[in-house]
Amino acid sequence: MKNLEQRIIEDGVVINNDILKVDSFINHQIDVALVRDIAKDITKEFASFGVNKILTIETSGIAFAYAVAEEMGNLPLVFAKKSKSATVGNDVYTAEVKSFTRNIVSKITVANKYLKPSDTVLIVDDFLAEGNASIGLIDLCKQAGTKVVGVAVAIEKGFQGGRNRLEALGLKVYSAADVKAFVDNKPVF
Amino acid sequence: MKNLEQRIIEDGVVINNDILKVDSFINHQIDVALVRDIAKDITKEFASFGVNKILTIETSGIAFAYAVAEEMGNLPLVFAKKSKSATVGNDVYTAEVKSFTRNIVSKITVANKYLKPSDTVLIVDDFLAEGNASIGLIDLCKQAGTKVVGVAVAIEKGFQGGRNRLEALGLKVYSAADVKAFVDNKPVF
Repeated sequence: MKNLEQRIIEDGVVINNDILKVDSFINHQIDVALVRDIAKDITKEFASFGVNKILTIETSGIAFAYAVAEEMGNLPLVFAKKSKSATVGNDVYTAEVKSFTRNIVSKITVANKYLKPSDTVLIVDDFLAEGNASIGLIDLCKQAGTKVVGVAVAIEKGFQGGRNRLEALGLKVYSAADVKAFVDNKPVF
Repeated sequence: MKNLEQRIIEDGVVINNDILKVDSFINHQIDVALVRDIAKDITKEFASFGVNKILTIETSGIAFAYAVAEEMGNLPLVFAKKSKSATVGNDVYTAEVKSFTRNIVSKITVANKYLKPSDTVLIVDDFLAEGNASIGLIDLCKQAGTKVVGVAVAIEKGFQGGRNRLEALGLKVYSAADVKAFVDNKPVF
């Protein structure tokens, strides 16, 4: 999506040719019109997949997932929670996710009742890097017997391997903007 | 808003005449069409206040704030972050918020550059109970010299004092559904 690429070039901040900060329009301040455009773009790609539920993870995936859920016909939206407690009840599915940017492992959970074998899920998030968050969400769905058809994100960092891991699982992967590399702390598409 | 009240009666779970769980349509699984209705309702109430920025706090306020920001004409949306680290830089405003449901104090932050003296802010959240989250957000705005005109929430627990605290600060407070009491673990409007 050209306008997202342009925005990343103009307002994104690259640190050490590695981290892309998009605080001014995605991660802290949100440009809601841009999010809506991205949601429309994602919806076109997944229109024929029989999706009946959108799954994301708190926090910065929620705005995108909300807009996609609306675009796809007011589908239910479920967001996995990052659990603070070591103990979790029997009524939740749990998986572990390693954060790319912060290098910590968190536990994520979804209540059993919100993932069903009858669901066909599209995972929506802001970023795809190594794919760890998506792999964690897919793990939750697997425990529930829920079918996942794809992963849709606003921004992919294509050189960090996430797409390959997800496509190897038979999933369609779509990003509105794919950063192929950082050169001199500038994104290359 | 009658349909929200009805939904709370049907799908809300009250624990100990105190905590209202709305996991199935607001806090974990989100009914995006209901959120949109609430956003339209809120927007009508604040149409004449000259709002140019929406402020919320992660996590469950984001969907509402996103929809309100769109309804008000694609305003910028800023969400305060719950800070994990004790140390915060000079480039953020910081306030403390006591969580009603979990009885812990968290630090919340907003980057300086996203709150300006020229901004007129509407605070949007999912719940208003004692008003602690809103008071924390107002504190951040005060540090920035930013004007706050009101607080809009989906669900108010009118008996827990939040409204009085906020109105005493000269703010307009609006809730799409106001729970006046819990009686036998049932909400009364």
